[in-house]
Amino acid sequence: MRMIKWQNGTVITPDQTKLPLQEATLEIKTVEQMAEAIKTLRVRGAPLLGAAAGFGVAIAAYRSKAKTTKQLLAELETAGALIKAQRPTAVNLFWGVDRVLGKAKTFSGGVEELKAAVIEEAQKIADEDAAQNRAIGKNGSVLIEDGDTILTHCNAGELATVEYGTALGVIRAAWEGGKKIKVIADETRPLLQGARLTAYELKRDGIPVTLITDNMAAHVMSKGLVDKVIVGADRIVQDAVFNKIGTYGVAVLAHEHKIPFYVAAPKSTFDLSCKAADVTIEERKPEEVTHVGCQQTAPDGVAVYNPAFDATPLKYVTAIICETKVYYSKDFPAFKKGKL
Amino acid sequence: MRMIKWQNGTVITPDQTKLPLQEATLEIKTVEQMAEAIKTLRVRGAPLLGAAAGFGVAIAAYRSKAKTTKQLLAELETAGALIKAQRPTAVNLFWGVDRVLGKAKTFSGGVEELKAAVIEEAQKIADEDAAQNRAIGKNGSVLIEDGDTILTHCNAGELATVEYGTALGVIRAAWEGGKKIKVIADETRPLLQGARLTAYELKRDGIPVTLITDNMAAHVMSKGLVDKVIVGADRIVQDAVFNKIGTYGVAVLAHEHKIPFYVAAPKSTFDLSCKAADVTIEERKPEEVTHVGCQQTAPDGVAVYNPAFDATPLKYVTAIICETKVYYSKDFPAFKKGKL
Repeated sequence: MRMIKWQNGTVITPDQTKLPLQEATLEIKTVEQMAEAIKTLRVRGAPLLGAAAGFGVAIAAYRSKAKTTKQLLAELETAGALIKAQRPTAVNLFWGVDRVLGKAKTFSGGVEELKAAVIEEAQKIADEDAAQNRAIGKNGSVLIEDGDTILTHCNAGELATVEYGTALGVIRAAWEGGKKIKVIADETRPLLQGARLTAYELKRDGIPVTLITDNMAAHVMSKGLVDKVIVGADRIVQDAVFNKIGTYGVAVLAHEHKIPFYVAAPKSTFDLSCKAADVTIEERKPEEVTHVGCQQTAPDGVAVYNPAFDATPLKYVTAIICETKVYYSKDFPAFKKGKL
Repeated sequence: MRMIKWQNGTVITPDQTKLPLQEATLEIKTVEQMAEAIKTLRVRGAPLLGAAAGFGVAIAAYRSKAKTTKQLLAELETAGALIKAQRPTAVNLFWGVDRVLGKAKTFSGGVEELKAAVIEEAQKIADEDAAQNRAIGKNGSVLIEDGDTILTHCNAGELATVEYGTALGVIRAAWEGGKKIKVIADETRPLLQGARLTAYELKRDGIPVTLITDNMAAHVMSKGLVDKVIVGADRIVQDAVFNKIGTYGVAVLAHEHKIPFYVAAPKSTFDLSCKAADVTIEERKPEEVTHVGCQQTAPDGVAVYNPAFDATPLKYVTAIICETKVYYSKDFPAFKKGKL
């Protein structure tokens, strides 16, 4: 199911802030509306943001009344700057805007042709992401056996991408291939992407899913209830996988219980220029920990530590599933030399 | 600070359902009020429930207009039955009621003397629990070094006991002994006893505390931010420690990071008649996982697994701190023979 669609100048995408309680659809018709949707996390998930950014510039092209390509390009630059400003640390936003703007800048032709080229490039970003995820799913599904129960953390699902998902893409491909699998979803505090999004999209698609709190993962593993773990990744460096906070703990527990731990991510996630020690982990506001939604759960003014990501050393990773191939532990030493 | 006090026929205790946002005090004057406070978790925590149960029977004695000891005993039996019925699986409730009733039944004397004996026995339960926890604190504090950062899970604190706490008793004793320690508190989903109670009572007492979500424990350990782990226990069997869900995961993570993992609990927690495999773990209602307070966080009707406790095999436990001594791994094999 496409999470983001271009329909005659309107971008159609689910309002993720309303999930799982309400399935509302956004109809984004202006750059300002796209900027607001990104800012307020109505649209979220790294690959989906890349596509949303491209479509944001495409909307500016579609609505433009520019008479010259110079004027049109200036308008696209303004639209791109507005989109980038919404979440200054989201690299995919920058990547999506720059890819479409880059195409526009090198294009030669009239105003209408330029508009069409910009819209086409945005559409291409979306199509490529969808194809990539299906390839990841296909490559990963061979690792899944009929009857497996798979634990996942956070949401590396369709809702974070244009279509199909990465970790959940592997699960989806195995399910579509007729394997009777079950999923255990960690709720993933503090922002509960597992409870809100992973549980929602698997339930919607009829894939059996059981929700647990993060601290139940060890217990379900010790009871023999988990055959495999699959998670996504935000950044893969020479010696570690960065992903949503809590991933590292799950990896250590999987290792202790001799359960394979798989990472599913596109090759664009690799950043082999650095090591885990070089990466600064984003710390987010205390309210995410002291509150759930508007409900306060901790005393006023208590000190909080709220890292958004953690690093899982590669020794805990069984394999990394990409769109072109699966990397096993024998392939990991090459990462230190910057090689894939 | 006494969590439960007898004051001229009135039992004074904090309303724990209001914490940490409000510090409200209950003044319990009737058995019915005590029953309601237990039922609604205004009073909770195994050792505290034992004392509350005893005081519940003491209130019945204090308020009684019985003319004969036979009539008084009948009234105490009725009061005890009402208290036990509030939480049928809380063993401390049964233990507290039965201890006071047992005293009453074997007492010889008049009505007023019997009333006094019942009140005295209830008071004794409370005093003994307080003394026991101070002894645990003293025994455990020698294991804590100046400057240590200690991670704890759930609330094995003053709020769960009559005074001082068990795991937090050790922390309190080290702090009172002048050791400059810091605490990291897991929030402890689903019921958030770490966020609501541990963070509250340590902050109130001026002991530095930082709150994290449960899935951040692995990350803080990997960053070298944790020197020791201390938790409480609900039941210690021949080969494992049963405690709040999530404890086992913390123990595995501590083991992997070579961090000592201590359990603090009174000797009454030991049940060496059985092994971990013999124990059925209570599963609680799905709403605890799909909701935080009144806020729904997961899709309607999603499947949930919600075990209340987990089992930590003794191989992950560095030592068990009791009121009489500290048991180290060399002492654990004797547990299999039922010996302490």
